[in-house]
Amino acid sequence: MKILLIGASGTIGQAVAKALSNEHQVIAANYSGGDVNVDLGNKTSIQAMLDNVGKVDAIVSATGLANFGPLAELNDADYELALSNKLMGQVNLLRLGQNYLNANGSVTFTSGILSREPMQGSAVIAMANGALESYVKAAALELDNVRINAVSPIFVKETMAMMGMDTEGGLSADDTAKAYVAAVTGSMTGETLDAPEYV
Amino acid sequence: MKILLIGASGTIGQAVAKALSNEHQVIAANYSGGDVNVDLGNKTSIQAMLDNVGKVDAIVSATGLANFGPLAELNDADYELALSNKLMGQVNLLRLGQNYLNANGSVTFTSGILSREPMQGSAVIAMANGALESYVKAAALELDNVRINAVSPIFVKETMAMMGMDTEGGLSADDTAKAYVAAVTGSMTGETLDAPEYV
Repeated sequence: MKILLIGASGTIGQAVAKALSNEHQVIAANYSGGDVNVDLGNKTSIQAMLDNVGKVDAIVSATGLANFGPLAELNDADYELALSNKLMGQVNLLRLGQNYLNANGSVTFTSGILSREPMQGSAVIAMANGALESYVKAAALELDNVRINAVSPIFVKETMAMMGMDTEGGLSADDTAKAYVAAVTGSMTGETLDAPEYV
Repeated sequence: MKILLIGASGTIGQAVAKALSNEHQVIAANYSGGDVNVDLGNKTSIQAMLDNVGKVDAIVSATGLANFGPLAELNDADYELALSNKLMGQVNLLRLGQNYLNANGSVTFTSGILSREPMQGSAVIAMANGALESYVKAAALELDNVRINAVSPIFVKETMAMMGMDTEGGLSADDTAKAYVAAVTGSMTGETLDAPEYV
């Protein structure tokens, strides 16, 4: 398969690229660097990336910006970023990208465990994740020959280590990547794949 | 209690107003008419409403705009309306409204069953509802002396009848209102109250 991977340079993205590259051609899309550039928060930029890349068999998003922050300190820009980038950026990958998919192609979003198991400081991230998971379930009802799913990672061990956190309870990037491979190579649609279940 | 009810003129809102008015003072806020006016999609308008009304014991939203429509026909404006009105309009009621709540006050949003049981044509509504439910769960972790919940109605019988649908499987507005009364008078926070469970 020819797979367009957005966020290929991230911690999860690199692991997904490695896992998929064994059997597939991966086109790495990043904000800067990689095979092609894209600003996920900009619909015109997404369209340009798709025009540049052409037809693919799968589109995978391993990215989406939203800020952690105390509820009392979140400002309009924090809400706007979560909605325009993590939420609508990924939604627009489906809206625009479905026209660039070969038959029986798929789009895979990244949501996250915080939609259902939030922690302090996660309000706008939880909000975007919850939106993505409900959207995927609803949109799948109206898509023919295009599968749409979300992968819901838990905390990634490498990120936790980098932040000085105890990595117990996290999942390695390589293990997290397995859910993305399942979403791309499987037959499910409208699902949120909880990463720990695919290890 | 003094309760600010936004969307008091709607099908659910009228029933909520009636149910709460037995024991409480209800201030009816609508886009037009009622005791005070508000454009839920406009943060400045929400602020003006709150300044006008002053301190209350509870804020209840029985409104929020988002369009039904086939996935393939949804345009940027449909996504924008769901996010700016049904989602951020209600989120802004909490963000701004918490400063106008007496101790142990509450804010109650309206989400809806489509977040978890979508139907064709419900993609942007499901998206907004899923966002609201995850946001409520996350925000509650960081709010002291303010409860935040969402009520999730199913189809309202009166609306179904008006649309020429079979009302079997729906819930009357009066029965739906019982979940809002529970949210206002109960002690839960961070919860999504499924309306059929409160009949």
